[in-house]
Amino acid sequence: MQLSDSDQAEIDTARGQSASTRRATVPALEAMLFAPIPVLDHGFVRAIDYMGDDTAVVQAARVSYGRGTRKVSEDEGLIRYLMRHRHSTPFEMCEIKFHVKLPIFVARQWIRHRTANVNEYSARYSVMDREFYVPAPEHLAAQSASNRQGRGAVLAGDEAAEVLSLLREDAERNYTHYEHMLNEGEADPARRGLARELARMNLTLNTYTQWYWKTDLHNLFHFLSLRADPHAQYEIRAYAEAMMDMVRAWVPACFRAFEEYRLGAASFSASMLAVLRRMLAGEAVEQPGSGLSKREWAEMMAVLGR
Amino acid sequence: MQLSDSDQAEIDTARGQSASTRRATVPALEAMLFAPIPVLDHGFVRAIDYMGDDTAVVQAARVSYGRGTRKVSEDEGLIRYLMRHRHSTPFEMCEIKFHVKLPIFVARQWIRHRTANVNEYSARYSVMDREFYVPAPEHLAAQSASNRQGRGAVLAGDEAAEVLSLLREDAERNYTHYEHMLNEGEADPARRGLARELARMNLTLNTYTQWYWKTDLHNLFHFLSLRADPHAQYEIRAYAEAMMDMVRAWVPACFRAFEEYRLGAASFSASMLAVLRRMLAGEAVEQPGSGLSKREWAEMMAVLGR
Amino acid sequence: MQLSDSDQAEIDTARGQSASTRRATVPALEAMLFAPIPVLDHGFVRAIDYMGDDTAVVQAARVSYGRGTRKVSEDEGLIRYLMRHRHSTPFEMCEIKFHVKLPIFVARQWIRHRTANVNEYSARYSVMDREFYVPAPEHLAAQSASNRQGRGAVLAGDEAAEVLSLLREDAERNYTHYEHMLNEGEADPARRGLARELARMNLTLNTYTQWYWKTDLHNLFHFLSLRADPHAQYEIRAYAEAMMDMVRAWVPACFRAFEEYRLGAASFSASMLAVLRRMLAGEAVEQPGSGLSKREWAEMMAVLGR
Amino acid sequence: MQLSDSDQAEIDTARGQSASTRRATVPALEAMLFAPIPVLDHGFVRAIDYMGDDTAVVQAARVSYGRGTRKVSEDEGLIRYLMRHRHSTPFEMCEIKFHVKLPIFVARQWIRHRTANVNEYSARYSVMDREFYVPAPEHLAAQSASNRQGRGAVLAGDEAAEVLSLLREDAERNYTHYEHMLNEGEADPARRGLARELARMNLTLNTYTQWYWKTDLHNLFHFLSLRADPHAQYEIRAYAEAMMDMVRAWVPACFRAFEEYRLGAASFSASMLAVLRRMLAGEAVEQPGSGLSKREWAEMMAVLGR
Repeated sequence: MQLSDSDQAEIDTARGQSASTRRATVPALEAMLFAPIPVLDHGFVRAIDYMGDDTAVVQAARVSYGRGTRKVSEDEGLIRYLMRHRHSTPFEMCEIKFHVKLPIFVARQWIRHRTANVNEYSARYSVMDREFYVPAPEHLAAQSASNRQGRGAVLAGDEAAEVLSLLREDAERNYTHYEHMLNEGEADPARRGLARELARMNLTLNTYTQWYWKTDLHNLFHFLSLRADPHAQYEIRAYAEAMMDMVRAWVPACFRAFEEYRLGAASFSASMLAVLRRMLAGEAVEQPGSGLSKREWAEMMAVLGR
Repeated sequence: MQLSDSDQAEIDTARGQSASTRRATVPALEAMLFAPIPVLDHGFVRAIDYMGDDTAVVQAARVSYGRGTRKVSEDEGLIRYLMRHRHSTPFEMCEIKFHVKLPIFVARQWIRHRTANVNEYSARYSVMDREFYVPAPEHLAAQSASNRQGRGAVLAGDEAAEVLSLLREDAERNYTHYEHMLNEGEADPARRGLARELARMNLTLNTYTQWYWKTDLHNLFHFLSLRADPHAQYEIRAYAEAMMDMVRAWVPACFRAFEEYRLGAASFSASMLAVLRRMLAGEAVEQPGSGLSKREWAEMMAVLGR
Repeated sequence: MQLSDSDQAEIDTARGQSASTRRATVPALEAMLFAPIPVLDHGFVRAIDYMGDDTAVVQAARVSYGRGTRKVSEDEGLIRYLMRHRHSTPFEMCEIKFHVKLPIFVARQWIRHRTANVNEYSARYSVMDREFYVPAPEHLAAQSASNRQGRGAVLAGDEAAEVLSLLREDAERNYTHYEHMLNEGEADPARRGLARELARMNLTLNTYTQWYWKTDLHNLFHFLSLRADPHAQYEIRAYAEAMMDMVRAWVPACFRAFEEYRLGAASFSASMLAVLRRMLAGEAVEQPGSGLSKREWAEMMAVLGR
Repeated sequence: MQLSDSDQAEIDTARGQSASTRRATVPALEAMLFAPIPVLDHGFVRAIDYMGDDTAVVQAARVSYGRGTRKVSEDEGLIRYLMRHRHSTPFEMCEIKFHVKLPIFVARQWIRHRTANVNEYSARYSVMDREFYVPAPEHLAAQSASNRQGRGAVLAGDEAAEVLSLLREDAERNYTHYEHMLNEGEADPARRGLARELARMNLTLNTYTQWYWKTDLHNLFHFLSLRADPHAQYEIRAYAEAMMDMVRAWVPACFRAFEEYRLGAASFSASMLAVLRRMLAGEAVEQPGSGLSKREWAEMMAVLGR
């Protein structure tokens, strides 16, 4: 990731300013504010603003007049209780806003999370940057044979080299043609230049775009539980992981509850629970006769570490 | 509106604290933070937290790295443009959170605005306060004869006196019975006490409840345009008006655009536009022959000040 | 539940009509359409309209041109896979609309589910019916001593009798005063009548209201998983259970998957999973030393049937 | 637009089936059901399912037990009233589902409408088709000089020819490389094939994708009012226009109200209203001194046909 001098100067200015506020303030997140965390080859995510902290969740749950005089351990206990019993509304009382630079194909997955506010860089209005995602060699994976929407082993040798050069060359060429069709500033006075809203269609899906993305803590946890999951595509997972570090700094007690009751938890179906009861009663249950499919059996055994 | 000593102490404590932040900060709203603005006889609304300011709208619209070096007038021009052309997403980048005390029948209208986050005081978990809304004499209106969902003249004399005493007595009596059925703290050891979640059903709809309510600026403007409207029921309008003062302090440029393009604006239907063109061409148009119903004609003339 | 003759006639007419359609049609739900299922003492829920069936979920997941020629077992397998992996969007492709008559305090819980469309009977515009919920003796529960938002044993004897009579009398009296204040049709020509939007505030929270409520299958499952849960208040659970019978008739394969992976499933936290692994390794784990609180331990043992 | 034989057969089968239903049914929309309406060069939109009709809006507004015995003109009057006063919830009681084939850059605009349900063809799971949007010559527009996000005159001559051939060649080449990298079915046994979720990033933004898209009538009207507007990009407007024909057939009374109070209506700002009052009083108002910017003045005069 590289920023232009003027972008870097804007960030430095923002980080250099401070004001006095009566609002809930979190020094650990303040320290990170505005600073881009690099993700993938040219992307980043940076926190731009936030509202609330761990205590704000507690206050909302209690609909209280102030921060109260309860012990920290009581507050953490309440947060764990809320997370465990899926009382989601108090977590909606915290809000965070990110500025993200990401490849278009990642943006297309991300936007499926509807309960968020988004402002994307407009390719109708502005010219896109010449920046494309090309996977690092260790992320250049083959199609999985067993999982139609997953990855298998890493590609190597000639095949890897060819893929990387195709991705690079096609993106570069299409961008060059995009710029040519735009004829910005009438570089060639004999041409009028294609409308930006049309020329953009020549770009490839690994072109980087940018957006402001704002959501509440409950919906952010939902996003993270799906996108930081090992089944998520690596490229969006990389963003989710960078965001998790910021959330951990922002609302540490909520984050611990999230790890305990979501990230690190597992759901057992009715049939799995029946198997579990038989196993705990000392029975040697095998997949045939378990009532579970092979895949479900394998998933259950993996969760149980067997 | 009266607060308990401990509630007032909580508010004073919150107002006495301050911290340093890198976030966008608005001194005019900071000055109001946490302080309840009285509404109706026992209600209030107070701002608890906020995110963003006028500049945040501009930054999101530009997806920019910082506050930029543009002129204030350019920013205001952009805000007006966004409001005028219903580019609503940049306004979603500001967020505000209120603590509201309000009668249940008002809460039932309010909650119909779904794009918001809410935590309400739980009458399953806690005991409600003995507080009811009784209209001030000047708001004790008769049913409108012309508008099935509106108000007519103010009630007076015996009828007013009777209504006020019925409202007061019924609310008080029902609350007394509520408390009796609850038998909190086993006041009467011979009784077990009805479950809170059941006892509450004896309360009247003018009983006060409380909630935390959080929304973004776009949805808040939508709420205000409907609820600060003269057609809205007076009791919810009183809250909308108190909130408008806070929004004006918070995002003055956005608020001016809202006044120009929403609050003070009017929509003309296709048929009204046809009438308008005829009038501007010098024709003396009358309602019969205008293509408008009597009611639409009256509405149009009112907007035109004729 | 009792319907007026004209309401019953409307229902009979609707049930008597039929038309030819190319849309996905479910005879088992058609048989139930429009017929009210009684809930509580005066309430009901009836299905008014629906869109889609089990196959519609499958078609959406495959983004296919038609119903395809796959086997039913393949379709059911896909539905189970989607439910298990929380691919929720295909379930959003089915929609259902209900007409519900319910006490106001139940409506206030219900409306917290925001992802639905609602039209409620307007007490600003119309006069409410004289109908109130009074619990059946077996549902007149004491406050739970252990759970601040739950119920304990059933009230009996004098206390029960007193509670029932207070609930009945207060509701009846307040309604009588409501009617009096309204002075509908200028029953008493000396009075103008209080505006409907004000008079309604004298009603108690067990007064029945009505609404049309429409949602998609994914959000309906979410509603049912929370409201058909034993922790939900009995009064809303009664509605959830009536609706489940209709959903089972409508989309039987989806409903089976819902039972397997939601209703009958259980989530184990990270700490619970650690306990489970120790138990399966033959260790005799006790609550002290388990890393679980007493309450979590009890919940886990209950799920495991120990 | 061309369909494969098997896709066409699926459509024919669906159109050939019919069932008896008690639900509200609209013959004019039934006649269109499942049949794709061609849009752009390879796209289409087809209605897959619907719920409700004009009467359903009326019933929801009245929360009634049946279709009632009112006159059609009363129903239409109510629909006009609801639309005029922005009572949007009754229109949410109708729902429609479309299957759409559209270029990815159009899909990216479309998905910004969040209040809808979507299932998109998955390029992680399946291989995309070799189909790209290339504008017809009459839609190959230059960048507008006056409007940064608009189109100017149509390109002609060598420039047009060059643009068209660049768009075609780049899309074709990138697709060929996509297919090559995928190595589907191990066409070349020496290669493993790049994961689908990665290979897709080489595609251009004019590649066609498909989705099921479902929304309610209120949100559909909002979508149409923005996307059928002359300021919308032509490519998405083409879809909006095709959908309008279906909506007109489906809910004719609602559609007429939509045309009168939305599509054909205009909003006048506070300052515009002041100008209007002066003009109607006979004053010869000019832009300087009007309080309006040049652009607002021009827009107002255009609406007034002056």
